[in-house]
Amino acid sequence: MRCRRCGEKAVLKMPRHNTAVCGNCLNDYVIEQVKRAVKDQKMFERGGRVLVAVSGGKDSLTLWDILMRLEYETAGLHIQQGIGDYSEQSYKKTVAFAESRGAELIVHSLREEEGAGVLELAKLTDRSPCSACGVMKRYNFNRIAHDRHFDVLATGHNLDDEASRLLGNILRWQEDYLAKQSPTLPATREKLVKKVKPLYRLAEREITAYAVVNKIDYVIEECPMSVGSKMLVNKEVLNRLEADAPGTKQAFYFGFLERQKGADLSHEDEKIQSCTRCGQPTTARVCAYCRILEKVKAAT
Amino acid sequence: MRCRRCGEKAVLKMPRHNTAVCGNCLNDYVIEQVKRAVKDQKMFERGGRVLVAVSGGKDSLTLWDILMRLEYETAGLHIQQGIGDYSEQSYKKTVAFAESRGAELIVHSLREEEGAGVLELAKLTDRSPCSACGVMKRYNFNRIAHDRHFDVLATGHNLDDEASRLLGNILRWQEDYLAKQSPTLPATREKLVKKVKPLYRLAEREITAYAVVNKIDYVIEECPMSVGSKMLVNKEVLNRLEADAPGTKQAFYFGFLERQKGADLSHEDEKIQSCTRCGQPTTARVCAYCRILEKVKAAT
Repeated sequence: MRCRRCGEKAVLKMPRHNTAVCGNCLNDYVIEQVKRAVKDQKMFERGGRVLVAVSGGKDSLTLWDILMRLEYETAGLHIQQGIGDYSEQSYKKTVAFAESRGAELIVHSLREEEGAGVLELAKLTDRSPCSACGVMKRYNFNRIAHDRHFDVLATGHNLDDEASRLLGNILRWQEDYLAKQSPTLPATREKLVKKVKPLYRLAEREITAYAVVNKIDYVIEECPMSVGSKMLVNKEVLNRLEADAPGTKQAFYFGFLERQKGADLSHEDEKIQSCTRCGQPTTARVCAYCRILEKVKAAT
Repeated sequence: MRCRRCGEKAVLKMPRHNTAVCGNCLNDYVIEQVKRAVKDQKMFERGGRVLVAVSGGKDSLTLWDILMRLEYETAGLHIQQGIGDYSEQSYKKTVAFAESRGAELIVHSLREEEGAGVLELAKLTDRSPCSACGVMKRYNFNRIAHDRHFDVLATGHNLDDEASRLLGNILRWQEDYLAKQSPTLPATREKLVKKVKPLYRLAEREITAYAVVNKIDYVIEECPMSVGSKMLVNKEVLNRLEADAPGTKQAFYFGFLERQKGADLSHEDEKIQSCTRCGQPTTARVCAYCRILEKVKAAT
């Protein structure tokens, strides 16, 4: 198999583009897609400070790698979830990646800062681990980006993530979630920082290939808590559809974005207010984070 | 396993309703759903004449059976497609069903009327068999219903059919098709008769159980041309999602119908005109049916 662009030995077939690429052309392609995402979706400008949420997986490390290649001013933010060996490995790989590039990394440990890891938090509050983890991540991503004056928070969500989230939202017609599913969510005056997903144009397998070609040492295991999740079922189903008709995920998600153009994506209409305890943005009187923390304190 | 309604031995588990039913209660449930479909979607009134498109499969025979039980004035319309043994069996089962109930059956043979079966028509016109078959069915369903003064044409599409068609339309955001995907399509002055799908509230497996319980002798084989079709892939995928979360198909399709309420479903806006050859409704100058027939004539 030869690269359709330059004739070198190909490393990846890309059925949805009816092509195959070598390592160099893969890099060009991946970087081009990120550039286009940043521009098309008005994610950030040169000179802006970008906080990259890095789990240690292929997506977030690839995102950070590319943003540094493109010479954006970035820092990484890693949350230590305290999910046994998985979190240990994730932390180590993230630190090693940051050190190898001399990049600034902010580490936030749930055990140290909130007093308990994800599994304990879930138990104490009768939430699923994924729900507790989601609250902790969203809260800390936003608070840290805001307090440290970053212009935007970037996450490594890829085309597969977004298409499967879209599928889940559409299967149950979750209007609220559909209205907010965008690669760029604007900031609001209520301390919600701008959020962006610069990898939304790239398929998971393209990112994996990029990580391998560029020798990015990432955590291969999925989070052990994700087994059996709806998200994985949706991904499996979309992979089946993609195998039958390459380009399905792209047509599905990009088509959705086309239809959504001009829709109001500001968070304002949700009646966001300041949490009466911590002052962070929330739609309730006391935010979910503070409600979880209250139970942690009661238990210790 | 016991019927949750009356305690008799259950014949069918219905995870999406978190219940199980015996044969009698299954019949009550199935008939109730058809009644509700007819009423909610304003399909037809008592005294109206209903032409039922019957292939000889479980769905169309079940539909006809129920409409006769409910004492609607019906006739069956069977199209002989000329796809070998499959079509032979379909024809025989349909005739036997109609005779056993003393019901009026109109039979239209493509070989006799159009001069060629589906496979020959497809070859002659460079269409896929499913495309050629679709044109022939839509044309003849509509023309025969119109010429014989039926008020409405009823087809046996079930919840699985509609949900998988919806999935296919949404994956590619086929706006035109989405706008017209409704259990009831109104008539227009341009000779398009009203079309209805009274089984849209019922899952395929519920209809199969009804057919078995009521000893309806139907063709079990799927059309041999449908192997590998997008429709079957979409159904497979929805079955996977349904197994993971019972009720998914229903929430997906019913939720779509809720959102679609109030949308204009008339065919008028498509600029329907009369075919310059046959006078039947079409969006082109010469309709697809006449264009196919032209090639048949040229070849013979």
